[in-house]
Amino acid sequence: MYQVDLNSDLGESFGRYTIGMDQEIIPLISSANVACGFHASDPVVMMEAAASVKAAGGQIGAHPGFPDLMGFGRRNMNISFEEAKAYTLYQLGALDGICKVHGLKLQHVKPHGAMYNMAAKDYKLSRAICEAVAEFDPKLIILGLSGSQTIQAAKDCGLNAALEVFADRAYEEDGSLMDRRKKGAVIHDEEEAIRRVIGMIKKGKVTAITGKEIAIQADSICVHGDGEKALLFVKKIRSTLMQEGIKIRPLKALGHK
Amino acid sequence: MYQVDLNSDLGESFGRYTIGMDQEIIPLISSANVACGFHASDPVVMMEAAASVKAAGGQIGAHPGFPDLMGFGRRNMNISFEEAKAYTLYQLGALDGICKVHGLKLQHVKPHGAMYNMAAKDYKLSRAICEAVAEFDPKLIILGLSGSQTIQAAKDCGLNAALEVFADRAYEEDGSLMDRRKKGAVIHDEEEAIRRVIGMIKKGKVTAITGKEIAIQADSICVHGDGEKALLFVKKIRSTLMQEGIKIRPLKALGHK
Amino acid sequence: MYQVDLNSDLGESFGRYTIGMDQEIIPLISSANVACGFHASDPVVMMEAAASVKAAGGQIGAHPGFPDLMGFGRRNMNISFEEAKAYTLYQLGALDGICKVHGLKLQHVKPHGAMYNMAAKDYKLSRAICEAVAEFDPKLIILGLSGSQTIQAAKDCGLNAALEVFADRAYEEDGSLMDRRKKGAVIHDEEEAIRRVIGMIKKGKVTAITGKEIAIQADSICVHGDGEKALLFVKKIRSTLMQEGIKIRPLKALGHK
Amino acid sequence: MYQVDLNSDLGESFGRYTIGMDQEIIPLISSANVACGFHASDPVVMMEAAASVKAAGGQIGAHPGFPDLMGFGRRNMNISFEEAKAYTLYQLGALDGICKVHGLKLQHVKPHGAMYNMAAKDYKLSRAICEAVAEFDPKLIILGLSGSQTIQAAKDCGLNAALEVFADRAYEEDGSLMDRRKKGAVIHDEEEAIRRVIGMIKKGKVTAITGKEIAIQADSICVHGDGEKALLFVKKIRSTLMQEGIKIRPLKALGHK
Repeated sequence: MYQVDLNSDLGESFGRYTIGMDQEIIPLISSANVACGFHASDPVVMMEAAASVKAAGGQIGAHPGFPDLMGFGRRNMNISFEEAKAYTLYQLGALDGICKVHGLKLQHVKPHGAMYNMAAKDYKLSRAICEAVAEFDPKLIILGLSGSQTIQAAKDCGLNAALEVFADRAYEEDGSLMDRRKKGAVIHDEEEAIRRVIGMIKKGKVTAITGKEIAIQADSICVHGDGEKALLFVKKIRSTLMQEGIKIRPLKALGHK
Repeated sequence: MYQVDLNSDLGESFGRYTIGMDQEIIPLISSANVACGFHASDPVVMMEAAASVKAAGGQIGAHPGFPDLMGFGRRNMNISFEEAKAYTLYQLGALDGICKVHGLKLQHVKPHGAMYNMAAKDYKLSRAICEAVAEFDPKLIILGLSGSQTIQAAKDCGLNAALEVFADRAYEEDGSLMDRRKKGAVIHDEEEAIRRVIGMIKKGKVTAITGKEIAIQADSICVHGDGEKALLFVKKIRSTLMQEGIKIRPLKALGHK
Repeated sequence: MYQVDLNSDLGESFGRYTIGMDQEIIPLISSANVACGFHASDPVVMMEAAASVKAAGGQIGAHPGFPDLMGFGRRNMNISFEEAKAYTLYQLGALDGICKVHGLKLQHVKPHGAMYNMAAKDYKLSRAICEAVAEFDPKLIILGLSGSQTIQAAKDCGLNAALEVFADRAYEEDGSLMDRRKKGAVIHDEEEAIRRVIGMIKKGKVTAITGKEIAIQADSICVHGDGEKALLFVKKIRSTLMQEGIKIRPLKALGHK
Repeated sequence: MYQVDLNSDLGESFGRYTIGMDQEIIPLISSANVACGFHASDPVVMMEAAASVKAAGGQIGAHPGFPDLMGFGRRNMNISFEEAKAYTLYQLGALDGICKVHGLKLQHVKPHGAMYNMAAKDYKLSRAICEAVAEFDPKLIILGLSGSQTIQAAKDCGLNAALEVFADRAYEEDGSLMDRRKKGAVIHDEEEAIRRVIGMIKKGKVTAITGKEIAIQADSICVHGDGEKALLFVKKIRSTLMQEGIKIRPLKALGHK
C-alpha cells in the first residue's frame, strides 16, 4: 500500500492582517504546520487554527521561525545555538499550550522559511532545533528536507524524521532542491508536478534537473493554501493520488524511523 | 504554625537589556514569577531564570502581561476577552515548555503590572485569564490581590487562589490597595512595613489608612529584586519572619482553597 | 463655490501582509493619510505609498498611531503626555524623511484609530499630539473630528484644523459621532449616506439621530479603500459630488483657520 | 594643528530598560551617535538624548540598525537593498524630527553593529545606506570604518566620509580590523591603546598585528559610555589628547572630503 502525508503552513495571519485560506486548506491536508508568533501568527490566530484542525480531525505541528515579523521569517538571521534552542522551545511550548485546551497533541515540528533553509545546510542550527524538540518531547517528528542536515541532527537526537518533498520544485543530482533563482527551478506545469510526485511515492525516484534519475524518499508533500489557485491544485493532487491508490495519511501513521 | 510565601517578579531582562538581580533574589524567595516575553523577557532569559529557580530548589510561576514591551506592561490596554484568554494561554504554554526541559512544574500564575491592576477591578478580564489557566491546568494557583475580582474569578473557575499582600503599601478600609499617587500610599519606613506584615500573618489584620483595623489574609508577600537596597530589605524581612516563628513556604505548601 | 476634501487611510500593509487597495484608492482621493510604522506599515510600505501619492499628484499626511501592531492601533492604550508627544514626533519625522526623497511635503496629520478616538475626548492627549505637530512644523493641518478636543487643542497650539465627517455614520444632537455599537449608528444605505454628505457641504447641516437638524462643518470626508465595494462607493460619491458642483480639493486648498 | 573627533553610541535605552551612561558621556565627546528605535531606543529615549546633546553643545548623528531589538542589532540579517534603503531613511527621518524640535541639525550617520560590520564588507548594503543618506541630505557625513566598502559607497554617492578608528582594537596589515575572536584582537592595556591613537593622529600610522607599520587615517575615535570604567578611559584619553596638543572637534569641523 502506498501512502503519503500532505502538509501545509498555516495560522500565519497576524492581528487584523490575513494570509492564507486556513478554513479551506485544513480539511484537505493531513498535517498542519501552525506558525507560533515569531515570524507570523498571534495567540488568537493560533487558537483559531487549532480549533479548525481539531474540527477537521487533522494532525497539528509547530512551525517555529526567526523573530522577524517584518520579514515573515524569510531573511537569514545569524542567531546563536543557545538562541535557536530557546526560541524553538518557547514556540513549541506556546503552541502546545494552545493545543492542550483544544484536546490536541503536537505531532511534529517543521521549521519555517529562512530557519528551515539555513538549518538544512547548517548542522549546528539543526542540532539546536532538534535538541529543543527532543528535550520537549522525544516523540515529536521532525519534518525536514530530504538529505538535509536537519534530518541528520534529528536522528542524532533520537527523533523520528519525516522527509518532505516539493511537487513544484526541481532537484539537483545530489537530491538537494535547485536554487529557486535558477532557470527551471520551479515547475509550472501542474500535470508534470503531480506525475513527479507519484513517481517519488511509488518508485522512490525523481528525475533531477540534469536528466538523471535519482533516489528520493517522499514522506510528505508540502502544499500551499494562499489563494484559490493553490487550493485547486491541492484538490487536484488529492484526487490524483487517490486514483493512483495512494492513501493520504498523517506523518505519525507513516511509521518512519 | 505560621507560614507565608515570598514571591518576586523576575526573568524581566530582554536581549542585551538587564533588569533585576535574579541570581541574588531567587535563593531568598519561595515563589518566582517569571515574565513570559510579552511585557518583558525573551526565551533565553526565561531559560536562565528557569535554570536558576531549579538550582535554588524554588517554585516557579508564570507572570503574563500585556504585549507592550515599550511600556513594560504597565500601561492599561483595552484588550478583548478572547485576546486576554489567548495571550495568557500562549504565555503559560511558552514558560511551561521551558520548565519542562528543566524538570520544573508550574506552580502558579500571577498577572503582571497593568494586567494585574486592571484585572483586579474587572471581573471579565480576570475571568478570561482564569479560564485560560483552568483549561491549561486546573491545579495551577492564581496569585492575586486580596479582595479583587481576580480572586473571585479564580474561585468561579474552580482554581485555588492565593492572596498577595504588599509590605510597603497602605490599604483602604475596604481592603483595596490605596492609589499609589495618593499621599501616604507608600510606606517608606522599613521597620513599620515589616511590623505590618507580621500583623497580617499572625493576627490576619492590618491598620487601614483611616486608622481602622481591618481583616486581611496574607498568603504571599511581594518583594522586589531590582537593586542592592531591595535585596537588603528582603534579607531583613526574611530574618524577622524567622525570628517571629513564621515559616517561609511556597504557595503550594500553604494549602489554600 | 462648494468644495470638500476626500481623505483615506492607507500605507497600512506590513511586510508580507497586505491591507487596502492603495494603488486604486490614491487616484480617487485628495488627501492620503499614511500609516507610520507603529500601528501598521513599515519603511518599504511607506516608500511605496509616498511614490504612489507623488505619481497621482495628491497630498500626503501622517497617520500616527499607538505602538500596537497586534491590535492595529485600535485598542485604547494609556500612554503618558510625554510618550504621546514623542511617539507622534517620531512618526511624523519618519514619514517626513520618506516624503523628502520623493519631493513631497507633508500637508496634514490625522491620528489613527484608538489614538484618534481617545484624543477626541481627551484634551491632554490631543494637546500632546498637537504640540508635537506644532513644534515639528506649524504649517501642518490637523485633521480631526468636528467638535472634538483635538480641534480645540490644535487651535490652542496655533495650528490650522480641518473638520472630518463620516458619510456612513449617524450623529448625536451635540455633533458627536454616535457610538458604533448602538443601533442606527452606521448608515448602510449608500444613497442616503451621499445625500447626507451633500447636505453637510452645501447647507452645513445634518439630521441627528434624534431627528433634529444640527449644524456641522465638513472640510473632509473619510472614505475607505479596503475592498472592491469600498472603491465603488468612493467612485459613486466622487461622481455625485461633481454632479452637484462640489469640487474635490485637498485640505490645504480649502483655506481654514 | 592636530585634531580628532570623539564619537560614542548612545540613546540605546528602551522603555524601562537602561543601557549606557548618556548624561555622563555626552559632555565628554564631540559627536553623539543616537540609536533610532530599530536595534535600540524609543521615541522618549531619543528625545532625552537629543535634549542632552543640545544642552552639552555637541553634535548629533543617526545610528540606524537592523530591526532586531532582541539581538540589539548585533546579528547579521539578510535584508534586501530596498529594505536597507527604506530602513535607513525611516530612522534618519525619525531622529531628524526629534532634532528639529530641539533646534539641532543632524551632522552624520553611523550604522550600528551588524549593519556596520556587514556594510563594511558589502558594497551593495553600503550603497543602499548611502543612497538613503544622500537623498535625505547630501551634507550629512558618513562615519565608517577606514578602508571599508562603506567609505567607497559614500564617496560614490557624493557624500563626505569620516574615518573611524578604534583605540582598543588590533589591525591587520591591510588596515582592516582584526577579527574580535582572534587572540590579540583586543588591546587591554589602556596606555598602549592611547599611545596607538596618538600615533594614528600625529603620524597617520599604526603598527599592524604582524608588526608592520601601516598608514591609517583617524578622523574619529569610537569610545564607550557603558560603565564607570569606560567613562574613566574616556576622561583619560581626553586629557592625554589635550596634553599632546590634539584638539577634540566634531566631524563637521574636520573638513574632510
